[in-house]
Amino acid sequence: MVTMSMLPRAMVWVCLTLAACAQTQRTTTMDRPDGVPVVPTLDDVRAVSPALARYTQGPLLGDLWKRPGLSPRDRSIVTLSALIARNQSVEMPYHFNLALETGVKPGEISEIITHLAFYSGWANGTSAVVIAKDVFAKRGITSNQLPPATGDLLPLEEAAEAQRAARVEESFGSVAPGVVQYTSNLLFRELWLRPGLAPRDRSLVTVSALIATGQVAQIPYHLNRAMDHGLTKAQTSEVLTHLAFYAGWPNVFSALPVVKDVFEKRPN
Amino acid sequence: MVTMSMLPRAMVWVCLTLAACAQTQRTTTMDRPDGVPVVPTLDDVRAVSPALARYTQGPLLGDLWKRPGLSPRDRSIVTLSALIARNQSVEMPYHFNLALETGVKPGEISEIITHLAFYSGWANGTSAVVIAKDVFAKRGITSNQLPPATGDLLPLEEAAEAQRAARVEESFGSVAPGVVQYTSNLLFRELWLRPGLAPRDRSLVTVSALIATGQVAQIPYHLNRAMDHGLTKAQTSEVLTHLAFYAGWPNVFSALPVVKDVFEKRPN
Amino acid sequence: MVTMSMLPRAMVWVCLTLAACAQTQRTTTMDRPDGVPVVPTLDDVRAVSPALARYTQGPLLGDLWKRPGLSPRDRSIVTLSALIARNQSVEMPYHFNLALETGVKPGEISEIITHLAFYSGWANGTSAVVIAKDVFAKRGITSNQLPPATGDLLPLEEAAEAQRAARVEESFGSVAPGVVQYTSNLLFRELWLRPGLAPRDRSLVTVSALIATGQVAQIPYHLNRAMDHGLTKAQTSEVLTHLAFYAGWPNVFSALPVVKDVFEKRPN
Repeated sequence: MVTMSMLPRAMVWVCLTLAACAQTQRTTTMDRPDGVPVVPTLDDVRAVSPALARYTQGPLLGDLWKRPGLSPRDRSIVTLSALIARNQSVEMPYHFNLALETGVKPGEISEIITHLAFYSGWANGTSAVVIAKDVFAKRGITSNQLPPATGDLLPLEEAAEAQRAARVEESFGSVAPGVVQYTSNLLFRELWLRPGLAPRDRSLVTVSALIATGQVAQIPYHLNRAMDHGLTKAQTSEVLTHLAFYAGWPNVFSALPVVKDVFEKRPN
Repeated sequence: MVTMSMLPRAMVWVCLTLAACAQTQRTTTMDRPDGVPVVPTLDDVRAVSPALARYTQGPLLGDLWKRPGLSPRDRSIVTLSALIARNQSVEMPYHFNLALETGVKPGEISEIITHLAFYSGWANGTSAVVIAKDVFAKRGITSNQLPPATGDLLPLEEAAEAQRAARVEESFGSVAPGVVQYTSNLLFRELWLRPGLAPRDRSLVTVSALIATGQVAQIPYHLNRAMDHGLTKAQTSEVLTHLAFYAGWPNVFSALPVVKDVFEKRPN
Repeated sequence: MVTMSMLPRAMVWVCLTLAACAQTQRTTTMDRPDGVPVVPTLDDVRAVSPALARYTQGPLLGDLWKRPGLSPRDRSIVTLSALIARNQSVEMPYHFNLALETGVKPGEISEIITHLAFYSGWANGTSAVVIAKDVFAKRGITSNQLPPATGDLLPLEEAAEAQRAARVEESFGSVAPGVVQYTSNLLFRELWLRPGLAPRDRSLVTVSALIATGQVAQIPYHLNRAMDHGLTKAQTSEVLTHLAFYAGWPNVFSALPVVKDVFEKRPN
């Protein structure tokens, strides 16, 4: 059987642009090592809902993924972030593989999982590990392609970090000093500075996870940070469009007023 | 072993009304085709919590499901919506089977899953497909009992849709034109008009999913729409009561002020 | 292979305090009875993310769990509550076992699961049962160590309950009388009074679940109740710190303003 991982990347893109080809991608069969879910094929979907199979082939894979406002690589990052933050194992094997085809590097997947352990709860990281390990093994990805546990960090933006830390300390230093301390030392002075994932992509992961889990209150800070790191309004708009499908319409409609407000308050 | 699916529907209702019988229903054994969870029996529950087994037999199956304010079929729709929107596979085999006994048609289950792919994220649809496919196969439900992928649609309520579209376009047209466009073309001019699930039931699915996932901000629009489609205040009240068990008390208490406000602003 | 459950409790604490030892704990292998997830080892984590393995050994197991502000037993209760309320099966086998090592009794685990069936949705209880049953069986825990389904209840705090019931009746009695009735009869006059879990611990479970699932609106009532039952500000602060890791930073940052407000309005 032809599986997506055997196809050269250009051909994957032919597939993504031709709905007729979409079924091939979704028939990727997976063995069942312990803990790895079976990925339903389009035929499986059709056996329960012919309409859902058609919407998957057409509007989702044939249309949404081809929209020019956001690259396929970014769409993969957004999709993986939604799946990991929502702990939706069933689609992970397909999307870890697709991400590697759209240009997300194994080391970046490694960092996305680590980042979301902090930003969506440790067990979501653990769940994603079970599946990513299997995908990596099947594709011959080894540890020398992964970022080391420790190493050089990106330079800290001292002024911005000092401002952030002061604001959080003032607000919550007396309520939860432990949270405040870990947030500075472990997150902003370490995790965010790991060079295996660009700050702009790390922000894209964070914002996608927040929208996908309905964490509206945390969107303004992280969307502003994402845009400071280079995410454009047009890309943000497409992130919302993409997440309507992958996190459900209601989560996106709850995020829209907040995103609108962030857009209106920024000069660009 | 006697399983629920072997019982005539009348006898199922005898079961639901007699707590003594509840264990029979919960001992439905399931093979383990790939990806389908084992359904714990009441004995399994009792091995960890005798109290939880008793609450399941008594207040839940013996009392809540018998309350007259909402039909068993509606309760099945509410329960399935909560389980799919919250991606809770473990109870799905039991409740897909129960839904087919309480009068939800295979084609309606198919449409509920498709609807919730849009309203709670694509991977929730995929997860539900894995389990529904197995339930359908075991009961001999074939694709000629399912709504076709395309076909005639219900008539559009032009004025109401024009008003909705204008309001969303004005609010978010500049922020996320892709979301606005898909919302009109794919959701309100297609998904909602598919005849395989009545608009009132589609609204019941949507409102149940919103309450079950804490998406409070989206409740007013969809609850009003549900009531325009025929859901009564008394039924809504029972939906909340039912969801207290299936989505947890806190989600219901967070929805209550919003529901109260919708009730107070409506003439009936 | 040495597994955690073979170690005397003191030695587990040596393990938790020595990062070098942490891998031993995480290599606990699990058979795979139906429905029980495989627990990834630290080596599995390392195969995908060397950094996540290091963060697990160091900051999480080697540092957070050792912080003096909250006992290991309380940390286990908080962790289990987050995992059950978020339906994160993959980490449950490890943490059910760890909880039994840190001093949570089998009967208390039984009550925690029952409590969260009501406070986070029935299917979360069912999912937890599948895994706890396996852990109990492997450790030879039998039903005579579990609280009975019915029995004597703790005395009701009549005045406080009358006040609570009156307030809820006034607010929502006309909207959802069924919810109001079950809340009084089943929750506050029964579940909360079951003696198998101390009221203070029941409150700790509830507050942890609320924070872990972003149910901010329900925090004030339950945090005040928890503090009335003996949870201190310092312990609450550490609960937040602990949940930053287990429920993700955003959920904790969304809870912080609400917790701060509760703290400021209380005399102690």
